[in-house]
Amino acid sequence: MELTIQTSSPYQILIRRGCLDQLGEQAGTLFRGGGRAMIITDSNVGPLYARRAADSLAKAGFVPDVFTFPAGEESKRLSTIERVYAAMAEQKMTRTDFIVALGGGVTGDMAGFAAATFLRGIGFIQIPTSLLAQIDSSVGGKTGVDLPQGKNLVGAFHQPRLVLIDPDTLATLPPRFFADGMAEAIKYGCIKSRPLFELIRDNDLSKEPKVLERMITECVDCKRRVVEDDEFDTGERMLLNFGHTLGHALEKHYAFSKLTHGEAVGIGMVKICRAGEALDLTKPGTAEEIAALLRQYRLPTEDDAPAESLAKAAAMDKKGMGGTLNLILLREIGHSFVHPIPKQELLPIIIKEKEEHA
Amino acid sequence: MELTIQTSSPYQILIRRGCLDQLGEQAGTLFRGGGRAMIITDSNVGPLYARRAADSLAKAGFVPDVFTFPAGEESKRLSTIERVYAAMAEQKMTRTDFIVALGGGVTGDMAGFAAATFLRGIGFIQIPTSLLAQIDSSVGGKTGVDLPQGKNLVGAFHQPRLVLIDPDTLATLPPRFFADGMAEAIKYGCIKSRPLFELIRDNDLSKEPKVLERMITECVDCKRRVVEDDEFDTGERMLLNFGHTLGHALEKHYAFSKLTHGEAVGIGMVKICRAGEALDLTKPGTAEEIAALLRQYRLPTEDDAPAESLAKAAAMDKKGMGGTLNLILLREIGHSFVHPIPKQELLPIIIKEKEEHA
Repeated sequence: MELTIQTSSPYQILIRRGCLDQLGEQAGTLFRGGGRAMIITDSNVGPLYARRAADSLAKAGFVPDVFTFPAGEESKRLSTIERVYAAMAEQKMTRTDFIVALGGGVTGDMAGFAAATFLRGIGFIQIPTSLLAQIDSSVGGKTGVDLPQGKNLVGAFHQPRLVLIDPDTLATLPPRFFADGMAEAIKYGCIKSRPLFELIRDNDLSKEPKVLERMITECVDCKRRVVEDDEFDTGERMLLNFGHTLGHALEKHYAFSKLTHGEAVGIGMVKICRAGEALDLTKPGTAEEIAALLRQYRLPTEDDAPAESLAKAAAMDKKGMGGTLNLILLREIGHSFVHPIPKQELLPIIIKEKEEHA
Repeated sequence: MELTIQTSSPYQILIRRGCLDQLGEQAGTLFRGGGRAMIITDSNVGPLYARRAADSLAKAGFVPDVFTFPAGEESKRLSTIERVYAAMAEQKMTRTDFIVALGGGVTGDMAGFAAATFLRGIGFIQIPTSLLAQIDSSVGGKTGVDLPQGKNLVGAFHQPRLVLIDPDTLATLPPRFFADGMAEAIKYGCIKSRPLFELIRDNDLSKEPKVLERMITECVDCKRRVVEDDEFDTGERMLLNFGHTLGHALEKHYAFSKLTHGEAVGIGMVKICRAGEALDLTKPGTAEEIAALLRQYRLPTEDDAPAESLAKAAAMDKKGMGGTLNLILLREIGHSFVHPIPKQELLPIIIKEKEEHA
């Protein structure tokens, strides 16, 4: 399956089992033969797939090198980027050379940022190997690193030249990280497509590779449509934040330790839908329908973090512009909209949701 | 004098004596009142002008803060950027806030890079206070920092929202740095405009502020035309590198200590013109005409660095793509063109130039 993303610089997304081994051949259509390629990967993914990626590049006439950093969000910092720059400068990489991001979201964000800024921008190819990265972070061109003061505070918009999604790489993913990605897949169904929501509900995707490939394609296509309409994240793209305002708040409340991103977003979706129902903006029963599907994929749907703590964390989120917070609500499964509120109204909304549910 | 730069995001350049004090008023037309502004400056320029800039912003209803780093190219590194990020994060700056770059080229490059990457890009205003920055680095949107492995290896293209050029700030510039800028001004005359070349020749610009303001305007307008035609530096913009291939090589040869950028570029212009004359591509006498004007502004025109060392440094310059080097030559004063040569031909050209001149 191939999709083309029509951003300021269009690129292809190839979704096909085994396509990791086509890296060299595909890169050959984009970059000059004989050029250097820096494969950036982490200590989990590197040992599994870096060799295959490098072999494929070498076979196609490129000169590959591998940069491996310790797996984990703690590596997503400027000091890692500095080491990447040093490795590229040592190799005397030029503007016609390229980076390959091989791994999950952290790898893609960092490798993309390095590509955006080395020599004021060189090309890069994304090979996302986690479900979350395959359906979410590999489309959109957002790159970045964390600062001690907060996540993703530094970054750039930089589109990849190509995205290779090989669903076979998900076979090595621990179950909790598979579920992490499923929460985002459910999100796409919620905001844009009831058929996608039902596809996920009516199949066990951890056991059906063919349906999984179809689901990935539908999710990517959904994100593609949203990103094409709003490349620089100023409007429509906000819909992708469904479940994320409270999800991020939960992640922050637990200092990014207790819940995975997907788990937090799942809980956030249920909470914000309950709030929408309480406000008479969302069809009754929607929150419960989402909760049931989350449970089906062994994802949590509840959390007892204090409302005050969540409201405070959400208000500080950089997505809030000035005094306004853009909540994303559903009318029903498959239809979402932006609902701007003054920041101070968030707390009463969360409290009300809690009371209604209690 | 106002110029509008038609890049992907158009912006105004205001060239007017005393316009530093209009910063707040001008920012008010671009940014939301009450927003935060981080003035980034160095330890030379800060004490002279930061207070006036901050006062002007405060008067217009903004909340200014000043970040000062030690003056000098040694500060142009990632660790300084990291401290800038930290200062902005501590102030909880958002996407609607902005940066003011107050100083020379180093300040503009670094502040611009911080603006390009903080929260994936926020607005910035340039107030160049050196002649070189006023006529050169404040137009074009190139931002960046050095790595231990080389200069400007990291960066981004990020256009300012506004450039304020106040020629009065040049009054505090040491003579050698004034001359540094004059070499680049002469370069614009060489590549695009004999009238500009003659304006510089027929006046003593260090003593005639009115003519100086006119010269700055002509230089900026010249760069504007080139940059508009080639925002992302792939063609026409190469003409701006006239004198720079050998100039950079000289700077490198002396480890950026003996010669200022302008001094090195001046020598580079003379050398490459002599080479052009030797190749029968440049009108005879052109090199000597440029040398005479450089001498008039107390700039050197000769250097005895070994040809082998220069050729090696030039070949490693990142501007060389693969095995080709794009020399910029003049047909005559005011007319320039790109002359691609295989890298290995540079050395014989330099040796020939030396021999002819000896």
